[in-house]
Amino acid sequence: MSDMLPKLFFNHFNDTSFIVEDDEEAVVGFLIGFLSQSKKNTAYIHFVGVHPDYRNQQVAKKLYNTFFKVIQQKGRNIVRSVTSPVNKGSIAFHKQMGFNIEEGDKEVEGIEVASNYDGQGQDRVLFMKRV
Amino acid sequence: MSDMLPKLFFNHFNDTSFIVEDDEEAVVGFLIGFLSQSKKNTAYIHFVGVHPDYRNQQVAKKLYNTFFKVIQQKGRNIVRSVTSPVNKGSIAFHKQMGFNIEEGDKEVEGIEVASNYDGQGQDRVLFMKRV
Repeated sequence: MSDMLPKLFFNHFNDTSFIVEDDEEAVVGFLIGFLSQSKKNTAYIHFVGVHPDYRNQQVAKKLYNTFFKVIQQKGRNIVRSVTSPVNKGSIAFHKQMGFNIEEGDKEVEGIEVASNYDGQGQDRVLFMKRV
Repeated sequence: MSDMLPKLFFNHFNDTSFIVEDDEEAVVGFLIGFLSQSKKNTAYIHFVGVHPDYRNQQVAKKLYNTFFKVIQQKGRNIVRSVTSPVNKGSIAFHKQMGFNIEEGDKEVEGIEVASNYDGQGQDRVLFMKRV
């Protein structure tokens, strides 16, 4: 799974990005996050991956909690993250983790959505949590 | 073209991202860049778009030069950028702009390439320029 790691972001956001490995040091999950450059109180979770064999073992939860702790130490108290409206699993996970969904410019199946947020045709659900 | 703008990155990297508009304030090009969080002397150009009607009018060149100036003011002297090995236009453009290609782990048609750099299957040519 280490091939899946976007090295680009890992290189530039090393101090707010994390890897979980198994006993044999194989990558089972990772989180790429960064401190917002423009919004001085905000940190952003950009990309999270968990190996299919390690689903439902709270790998993502551990990664998120590690991120929350580290960015708090860096003086940030707002965490933002986005997902695609079709990604129901991610929406449920973020709600579980205490995120609120922000107001968008339209509604899809009862969920607030921001149109073209991540580029053309890339609608996104916007999450926000205070830590 | 403003629909194409990845608002996500614009929001978080507002001070190192730029838009070029025409006389009627329509977006004809944009550059999303950021200051590397981990590499304190480095700035990174993440994503550049130019409207097809405005190709060959040096919009990208102007955007790059604006970026160079701004990141120098912020104390950075290395600019990095990546592109896909198939994107010959981008490779030629970066060479024109004075970038060097960094050593990769393989060669594709005589060009050094880093495997899976931007995620699985996403090989990239890595550019570096001192400003």
